[in-house]
Amino acid sequence: MTKVIMHGCNGKMGQTITAMCKDDPEIEIVAGIDLYDGIKNDYPVFPNISVCDVKADAVIDFSNAKAVDDLLIYCEEKQVPVVLCTTGLSEEQLAKVKQVSGHVAVLKSANMSLGINMLMELLKKAALTLAPAGFDMEIVEKHHNQKLDAPSGTALALADSMNEALNEKYAYVYDRSRERKKREKYEIGISAVRGGNIVGEHEVIFAGQDEVIEFKHTAYSKAVFAKGAVQAAKFLAGKPAGFYDMSDVIQAQ
Amino acid sequence: MTKVIMHGCNGKMGQTITAMCKDDPEIEIVAGIDLYDGIKNDYPVFPNISVCDVKADAVIDFSNAKAVDDLLIYCEEKQVPVVLCTTGLSEEQLAKVKQVSGHVAVLKSANMSLGINMLMELLKKAALTLAPAGFDMEIVEKHHNQKLDAPSGTALALADSMNEALNEKYAYVYDRSRERKKREKYEIGISAVRGGNIVGEHEVIFAGQDEVIEFKHTAYSKAVFAKGAVQAAKFLAGKPAGFYDMSDVIQAQ
Amino acid sequence: MTKVIMHGCNGKMGQTITAMCKDDPEIEIVAGIDLYDGIKNDYPVFPNISVCDVKADAVIDFSNAKAVDDLLIYCEEKQVPVVLCTTGLSEEQLAKVKQVSGHVAVLKSANMSLGINMLMELLKKAALTLAPAGFDMEIVEKHHNQKLDAPSGTALALADSMNEALNEKYAYVYDRSRERKKREKYEIGISAVRGGNIVGEHEVIFAGQDEVIEFKHTAYSKAVFAKGAVQAAKFLAGKPAGFYDMSDVIQAQ
Amino acid sequence: MTKVIMHGCNGKMGQTITAMCKDDPEIEIVAGIDLYDGIKNDYPVFPNISVCDVKADAVIDFSNAKAVDDLLIYCEEKQVPVVLCTTGLSEEQLAKVKQVSGHVAVLKSANMSLGINMLMELLKKAALTLAPAGFDMEIVEKHHNQKLDAPSGTALALADSMNEALNEKYAYVYDRSRERKKREKYEIGISAVRGGNIVGEHEVIFAGQDEVIEFKHTAYSKAVFAKGAVQAAKFLAGKPAGFYDMSDVIQAQ
Repeated sequence: MTKVIMHGCNGKMGQTITAMCKDDPEIEIVAGIDLYDGIKNDYPVFPNISVCDVKADAVIDFSNAKAVDDLLIYCEEKQVPVVLCTTGLSEEQLAKVKQVSGHVAVLKSANMSLGINMLMELLKKAALTLAPAGFDMEIVEKHHNQKLDAPSGTALALADSMNEALNEKYAYVYDRSRERKKREKYEIGISAVRGGNIVGEHEVIFAGQDEVIEFKHTAYSKAVFAKGAVQAAKFLAGKPAGFYDMSDVIQAQ
Repeated sequence: MTKVIMHGCNGKMGQTITAMCKDDPEIEIVAGIDLYDGIKNDYPVFPNISVCDVKADAVIDFSNAKAVDDLLIYCEEKQVPVVLCTTGLSEEQLAKVKQVSGHVAVLKSANMSLGINMLMELLKKAALTLAPAGFDMEIVEKHHNQKLDAPSGTALALADSMNEALNEKYAYVYDRSRERKKREKYEIGISAVRGGNIVGEHEVIFAGQDEVIEFKHTAYSKAVFAKGAVQAAKFLAGKPAGFYDMSDVIQAQ
Repeated sequence: MTKVIMHGCNGKMGQTITAMCKDDPEIEIVAGIDLYDGIKNDYPVFPNISVCDVKADAVIDFSNAKAVDDLLIYCEEKQVPVVLCTTGLSEEQLAKVKQVSGHVAVLKSANMSLGINMLMELLKKAALTLAPAGFDMEIVEKHHNQKLDAPSGTALALADSMNEALNEKYAYVYDRSRERKKREKYEIGISAVRGGNIVGEHEVIFAGQDEVIEFKHTAYSKAVFAKGAVQAAKFLAGKPAGFYDMSDVIQAQ
Repeated sequence: MTKVIMHGCNGKMGQTITAMCKDDPEIEIVAGIDLYDGIKNDYPVFPNISVCDVKADAVIDFSNAKAVDDLLIYCEEKQVPVVLCTTGLSEEQLAKVKQVSGHVAVLKSANMSLGINMLMELLKKAALTLAPAGFDMEIVEKHHNQKLDAPSGTALALADSMNEALNEKYAYVYDRSRERKKREKYEIGISAVRGGNIVGEHEVIFAGQDEVIEFKHTAYSKAVFAKGAVQAAKFLAGKPAGFYDMSDVIQAQ
């Protein structure tokens, strides 16, 4: 059984993971970290990870960028692998993450869902077969009307996975209304739809002569990201130092 | 039986309509107009409509902007209703079309397909019910990689039909990558996907709390526009002067 | 403000509606009815509606078939309109519902979501335009892997709304694998997909020559049915005796 | 340059391939075989392949089951590789095909499109990752209203590719309306939609907890099958005896 510290345990994702772990005999939350203490949990909660004295096999982190500095210090010192799900880290923090991964196992992915990460693997193969055969690649993503950024980080990660497979020859295009011209061969169009409370939908389109192939991922609730984080923690416990992502989790299954 | 003059008979659409009319006992092409004379048709072909001496109940036009001036003069003088499918008319020509429609029946639509025009009617009702209930409206259109303009005229016409029903309160947004901010309530996002030889796909999305409603039209070949033009010609023959569009054809069915 | 009794207040839907009403200044739950009393609510809870002495403008019912008999007696006697959302009523109960609606306002719909009910209205118009033009109608519905019945009641209601508009000429087909033959003109194919925990997706397809029109509704959580029930209760309060459904709610908006 | 004999040159697919080869400098049709001689081609046409004396690197076959016997004799004797696209072969003919492939290269696939065959490869990997993670697999296929069989051979081939990857544990289910029960874990539901003149659409759905992944292929015209046959002929020319399919063509690209 994997013992984990839930970093950011009283946020929405923290509570979703807490509920999920109760029903999973392979994992147990042994401590939580959160400044907010208004929620009663079955495990002890500390205001900062530096004062946590409970031993664990891994940390799952869904907190905020500010709390990540102390987290990285702790994981390196105590040699506890960490699944890092907080987004919006600064360039310095990202550099620090890379450095820390030289001394302890760190897992970080643009998207924590099993489905998206498997799709990323398949898209590499699809791009390698279809792009040389003249297929054009486009992405449409849909999210709720409160999302600030566009396109989504996941849409960019999907585009990157195809572009990497094709030697980075493609430019990303977000707007076609400003110029009156034909589509260029080496471009990937990325469109962002916003509305309602859509959790997240990503569609990758390969359009060729008289045939179109589409790959689509729909998340129905944020629980998919919680589930991915739990799978990642089980995977990461006991692993040697290094930088991991969800594709390592998938390949191990 | 409706007798029609096919204006632009030797172009791709002209030939598609020619083939379609052969199989339709309710309509007959009695003359064609085209500068290009390399195709053998079952009807006489004239280089310009001004020299055509064959009587008809209607003209179907799929030619080019230059040829439209003579066409309008002819239709007004001879009192022959005209289904005007040529796009890219100048402001002056559009004004002339309106003026001519005071003296003879003229039909012009952003999109000639039965399906798109019916959708436009339904979208008005959907917008009136769903927008006040907090649903956000978005459009995604997909076309082939040779198309010059984006978004498509049909996507704009779909947005217009919703916006008109809602007192023109909505702004159209084509790109969300330039600003980091939440979606505004009174906007309609319109995204343009380009690839392969996709004939034309339009998807209208109403996204609310926990439910999404989508309306999608897919054209599999340009024959749908030919079919709409033929239906329009049958409808228009014998009609009094006025400006008509495909919604009139639908309501008459 | 509409005062309602929540019949079945401690079930999943009852609690969802309870939470929704807290945030809505136009509606207030003044009493709940439930045999199970393990949940603390802000309103008094009675084990059976016959012992409830709190005055209300309407009852929202998400209980079970057994509890509906007492509910109908209460609503008729006390002259309180009722939004009846419990499914699986017996033939006798359905007959009783009709009879009671002669003396008090009763609202019952196959599906409580605003979106589905609006779609039903639009499909009538679409069917009237497209079926005579040679379009074939098909429905694909998707639900979670625990659902017992197939196709869904909502899919059948969608088919019925099209069929009624077309004078009941169409037969429903659920399986095409048993016979080797062409599709009949007067049939509506209905396919049921089952998997994961999909809440509910309904797609209606009109397939013609070279063009296809699709109408699709996706429910992301059961909250959409709660929302519809709340809207229905606001609408029904103060209405005269009669049998209503969600289309009346939509037309009133 | 690959020199091919077009077996069934005056049928619809034969003519599509003829037009396609005219524009392709890497391939040339040097002779055609067809009983019907009403079409003028740029190459000599023979009524039966047994009387054809033109040398070629490969044969492309889109004829009918009756003509295949003579074709197999010819290819074995003359040692000419053959791309066999005729469907509806008898059990004896299929056995003969296998036997002949011991002496000359033969390529045969359930579906000739590049896209479908690539999808089949990717689905194996997707099934291996997602089925053990609890995802349910379903297929929806859509075809025109003249198609006799359901589900399509391609839908079955897609299901087979997933089922093979999972040790043939899954049963195929075509109808869920006859029994009132939950979905079984080890089943793949396959639904067939029929309408209009849809060329062919295949959607494979992996539905899990709170996430769904879909793979969709749309054919817009039968030209995609012609293109696949041309690619297969180029690939097969010069290959040693053996039984090939489109996945070999894809892997070679």
